[in-house]
Amino acid sequence: MEEIKINDTFSTKINFKDYESKELTLNGMIQNLRNLAWGGFLILRTPDYHIQTVYDRNSINVDPDELRVESAVKITGTVKAAKIKDKSIFPQDFEVQVTKIEVLSTPSVNPLPLDTTKKELNAGLDTKFDLRPLTLRHPKQQAVFKIAAVIYNEFGNFLAENGFTRICSPKMVSSGAEGGANIFDLEYFGRKAYLAQSPQFYKQMMVGAFGRVYETAPVFRAEKHDTSRHLNEYVSLDFEMMLENGFIDIIQVESGMLRHVLAKLAEKCSKEIALLDIELPVLNKIVMIPFQEVHEIIFEKYKKDFRGEKDLAPEEENLIGQYAKEKYNTDFVFVTHYPSAKRPFYTMDDPNHPDQTLSFDLIFRGVEITTGGQRLHKYEDYLSKMEKMNLNPQDFKGYLQAFQFGMPAHGGLGFGLERFTALICGLANVKEASLFPRDINRLDP
Amino acid sequence: MEEIKINDTFSTKINFKDYESKELTLNGMIQNLRNLAWGGFLILRTPDYHIQTVYDRNSINVDPDELRVESAVKITGTVKAAKIKDKSIFPQDFEVQVTKIEVLSTPSVNPLPLDTTKKELNAGLDTKFDLRPLTLRHPKQQAVFKIAAVIYNEFGNFLAENGFTRICSPKMVSSGAEGGANIFDLEYFGRKAYLAQSPQFYKQMMVGAFGRVYETAPVFRAEKHDTSRHLNEYVSLDFEMMLENGFIDIIQVESGMLRHVLAKLAEKCSKEIALLDIELPVLNKIVMIPFQEVHEIIFEKYKKDFRGEKDLAPEEENLIGQYAKEKYNTDFVFVTHYPSAKRPFYTMDDPNHPDQTLSFDLIFRGVEITTGGQRLHKYEDYLSKMEKMNLNPQDFKGYLQAFQFGMPAHGGLGFGLERFTALICGLANVKEASLFPRDINRLDP
Repeated sequence: MEEIKINDTFSTKINFKDYESKELTLNGMIQNLRNLAWGGFLILRTPDYHIQTVYDRNSINVDPDELRVESAVKITGTVKAAKIKDKSIFPQDFEVQVTKIEVLSTPSVNPLPLDTTKKELNAGLDTKFDLRPLTLRHPKQQAVFKIAAVIYNEFGNFLAENGFTRICSPKMVSSGAEGGANIFDLEYFGRKAYLAQSPQFYKQMMVGAFGRVYETAPVFRAEKHDTSRHLNEYVSLDFEMMLENGFIDIIQVESGMLRHVLAKLAEKCSKEIALLDIELPVLNKIVMIPFQEVHEIIFEKYKKDFRGEKDLAPEEENLIGQYAKEKYNTDFVFVTHYPSAKRPFYTMDDPNHPDQTLSFDLIFRGVEITTGGQRLHKYEDYLSKMEKMNLNPQDFKGYLQAFQFGMPAHGGLGFGLERFTALICGLANVKEASLFPRDINRLDP
Repeated sequence: MEEIKINDTFSTKINFKDYESKELTLNGMIQNLRNLAWGGFLILRTPDYHIQTVYDRNSINVDPDELRVESAVKITGTVKAAKIKDKSIFPQDFEVQVTKIEVLSTPSVNPLPLDTTKKELNAGLDTKFDLRPLTLRHPKQQAVFKIAAVIYNEFGNFLAENGFTRICSPKMVSSGAEGGANIFDLEYFGRKAYLAQSPQFYKQMMVGAFGRVYETAPVFRAEKHDTSRHLNEYVSLDFEMMLENGFIDIIQVESGMLRHVLAKLAEKCSKEIALLDIELPVLNKIVMIPFQEVHEIIFEKYKKDFRGEKDLAPEEENLIGQYAKEKYNTDFVFVTHYPSAKRPFYTMDDPNHPDQTLSFDLIFRGVEITTGGQRLHKYEDYLSKMEKMNLNPQDFKGYLQAFQFGMPAHGGLGFGLERFTALICGLANVKEASLFPRDINRLDP
């Protein structure tokens, strides 16, 4: 039996100022090496940043020519003031004069299959994904996921601060929320189960209980086409809320959330933003255009005729994004009142125009990033809508009971973390914003 | 096209002091009703709290006898100071004198299948789970999930503040991390895939890149036995980190994290803690007992002989919890150095005692809540361990490559949100800490 004290601090961040001219021991991996005649520079990767260390060939305990990138090392040295050029990598004006290097482990392949020390990682997508444990050691690759983590966390922080309760809904379910064929099924103790395409049914049920709920969790879509916009598994950021003024309440909360996330990105990811040369968008007003009007604008301004189509083509999303940028100087445009024909059964139709819905998409830089809207909340409205759509209420019994128990007017939205991250980071393919992407051809690593 | 301003505030919380003697409109659900001869009390459920409203039979616009619990309503009234007895429900000393009630929707079943207005929800587990959209409207049921949400969020907040990067690893995988038969499989575009039993492989691969990582996500276990300790799907809170001093680093971070979570529960969940009559545990030192010593203690003190067993029986966990409480006045005890025979291939053996591992379980109030430890980090160690255990490295190629690229000494742990929540809340069955539990018999709702 042993009884010990709990540490006071758990951070690996160091205030180098406190260590000036003092000895320090650092653990990390060798991110980069520059060996010169007199000695050289070793860039150490730690959980917080890349630290510049400098060594004198004659006064260290190892032969620097035998050091290798991606070795784990323990470095002892003296902290000294230094002008650090690239603040995007290391924010403090210090470096470490090495006195001792202890090599703790070394890659067992030599050379490494990719050079992660170059400014750009020169590899095709498949190579990048095949070698994920290595490619993610490249600073620019890492930066994408530092940004994704902040988006994920600040989405939740904003909602938790504003009365939303986090829920964790099951991913193995008895029926699909989005319908269609793109659903994975599995055998569940002798029965058929499905992987949840979205937490839709669960977040609605939980609005009845908690009033405002959110979830951040994986969803699964068995899409058979391999595109730059789709993943077969992605992280869905969802919320659902009681409404007082209709679906504008959802648009307001989404706008507030995005504004919060963007402010936090600017604050917490300045290194990554500089490294990736990103320009963060600004959201300072809500611009809304009804669906029908989008067709008209595209026709009048761009001479493309999509009028009569029940959905927006990717080209239209792109053009309306361009239009909003030119006319309203915004990267964000809400397209509202999509046709009923293209929305799922739980969507509320506009009482004034029953062929339109009280729903919307948010187009960001010409790409749809969220789908949201008001839902039906009366049991009898579900029954009549399902009859119209040839759905059997018996298949949705566990869900529909919520509406028998009384439900407030409500709505919400979902958006894909990877797609938003990719757009923020300027990545051409959404898969680059997934640590381990899943597509029709890829299940490994 | 419409252009509107973004709201300044998104919270539904109200500072009633600002509204004293003024009119206010509130949206919510009727949590409870007490109809008396002169009028009565209506408790309104909002996303933040239950608000006491009081009405005069002769001066409101509806017949109060026709109001029903679980209706959605919009209430207009005047705020007035009042002594609120039960601060666990509503923290401010105000109530609302109703002038107008607008009923927005009403339950379509009458009576509701369960009475959620009683102090205790009197129903068996199956009924509770079958009627989840209703049972979760009971204040004591809700309290459990408000507590779970804070545990989930503060686990992440603590780690994000201390250099850990959030990762999102795939749940559809090509091989299981924990081995054994309790794995769900699915058809993935003509191939066989599995549902991840844990993010183990992925968080290890990502330690090589980020140094410190964490994840909060569902995991799936096809356990065929239906017990009060198991779920077939649960939320796993995981972290993995570079080590400097061995597995004590993991125990330190876990202790710091738990201390942070407990402090935040005390701060943010005072209402729920009072309502559920919970005593929060205290963690102010680390108590560690080696596995072999546990057997000896149980034998000497409790006259039960488990010596020679390669694992702890639930009875032993319970007794060692009792022992730690009596001897060290703690609810937490770390049992270290589990036998190699019972730990997975990636576990690092103790170089001084190769039949023991550098791993541990944390026992909280007599129940194991986390399993953690140091992992192998050298490629050749994986190969020899896998040979010993008759595993084929080819089946783990995508994962094992990480160790070829160089890896630091590392380790981590995982723990189940529901199990910890159940123990904190004093629930007898872990399923009660799952919004929509999944077990061998239950896939719905």
